[in-house]
Amino acid sequence: MTITTIALDADDTLWHNESIFHLTQQQYVELLQDYGDADHMKARLLEVEIKNLSLYGYGVKSFTLSMIETAINLTRGAVPAKIIAQILDLGRAMLEHPVEPLPGVAETLETLKDGYKLVMVTKGDLMNQEQKLARSGLGEHFHAIEIVSEKDANTYRRVVARQGVRPEATVMIGNSMKSDVLPALEAGLWGIHIPYHITWAHEHAEPPSDSPRFAKLETIAEVPGWLRQRG
Amino acid sequence: MTITTIALDADDTLWHNESIFHLTQQQYVELLQDYGDADHMKARLLEVEIKNLSLYGYGVKSFTLSMIETAINLTRGAVPAKIIAQILDLGRAMLEHPVEPLPGVAETLETLKDGYKLVMVTKGDLMNQEQKLARSGLGEHFHAIEIVSEKDANTYRRVVARQGVRPEATVMIGNSMKSDVLPALEAGLWGIHIPYHITWAHEHAEPPSDSPRFAKLETIAEVPGWLRQRG
Repeated sequence: MTITTIALDADDTLWHNESIFHLTQQQYVELLQDYGDADHMKARLLEVEIKNLSLYGYGVKSFTLSMIETAINLTRGAVPAKIIAQILDLGRAMLEHPVEPLPGVAETLETLKDGYKLVMVTKGDLMNQEQKLARSGLGEHFHAIEIVSEKDANTYRRVVARQGVRPEATVMIGNSMKSDVLPALEAGLWGIHIPYHITWAHEHAEPPSDSPRFAKLETIAEVPGWLRQRG
Repeated sequence: MTITTIALDADDTLWHNESIFHLTQQQYVELLQDYGDADHMKARLLEVEIKNLSLYGYGVKSFTLSMIETAINLTRGAVPAKIIAQILDLGRAMLEHPVEPLPGVAETLETLKDGYKLVMVTKGDLMNQEQKLARSGLGEHFHAIEIVSEKDANTYRRVVARQGVRPEATVMIGNSMKSDVLPALEAGLWGIHIPYHITWAHEHAEPPSDSPRFAKLETIAEVPGWLRQRG
């Protein structure tokens, strides 16, 4: 069946994101350096983030709340409020961070948008993701924007249903094997994995062992060629 | 033109919400009672909330971050981390709070769902609103759920376009004159105002001076009668 619809993840697929979390985490452990070892702090922060996911969801506000909670726990309540104010500033800086599209993204979307229906599928803060899309200058290329609270197989089933397309006519492209590729394959879509140079520990997953609808590419610029090859 | 589609706000229209914010705010000023006067604190909190809206958006996580920021500012950095931990607990309790539908809501939706397309239109945290809808038991009545970052006239234009209906065939029902009624009227929909007993200061607005598409009702149970009267 011909592919008519291309669903694209946003963070770390269209623009840099994890690198900003990474940098912020570095600044965070420096802020708290009097209170313990950096690796230990990062491990505790990750635990708190994962514990909070089912209540807070994804995104910068959740991450900021988890940074504050971790700082209080790690210091057994001794962290001064002035450091917590600086953690709030770290979160704010992330929300205001310039959006930097990855190499080849703008050109590739420009090439694809006339022949395919392009749909952005992303999780995270609703308002922040909308603002990032606006700041990225990529918004006009998309036929639809889907900001979702979780990416599982049912999410992808709902997305193709809402777009009125068949799963086997849709390819999902993203940097996360766990959120973008595996659940899309499970829902009957095609899945293309384009790794980003940093992956959040919570998003790690093994590639599918044997799927004819799976491909791994190096950059988004290879997508038009892949679509041509499929015919 | 016949009304075919009913759009409904969620917080304080389908279920209690502002009362929970109100109660939390009360607990917040008690937590901080050694640092100042309650009314002054509430006024400062509101200022911080409104300042943060364009960056954080609506919802409990935003409110929690604003409560922390206000506590640090009000105390000039003297608030102990243990109180900030209690503020985090207040936010968590809000997110986990049972969802209590307002009187008449379940029965009215049950009556309307066979004759009309029902669409929930709400702002706030994506994940929290989805969880509240699931916990409310009202989810099955809705044809579509639209969680949006802001409610202005363009939001309502997009909602009716996505649903494939005409604005003049759609009525928006909600407790906020500012977010539910006025922008819906501006977009060409009908608007019904059903006040809740508490309104967040930021949502106050005057009713429209003269609109044939506006109505004010006391409870949602009056909606089927209003629709019949229109014929």
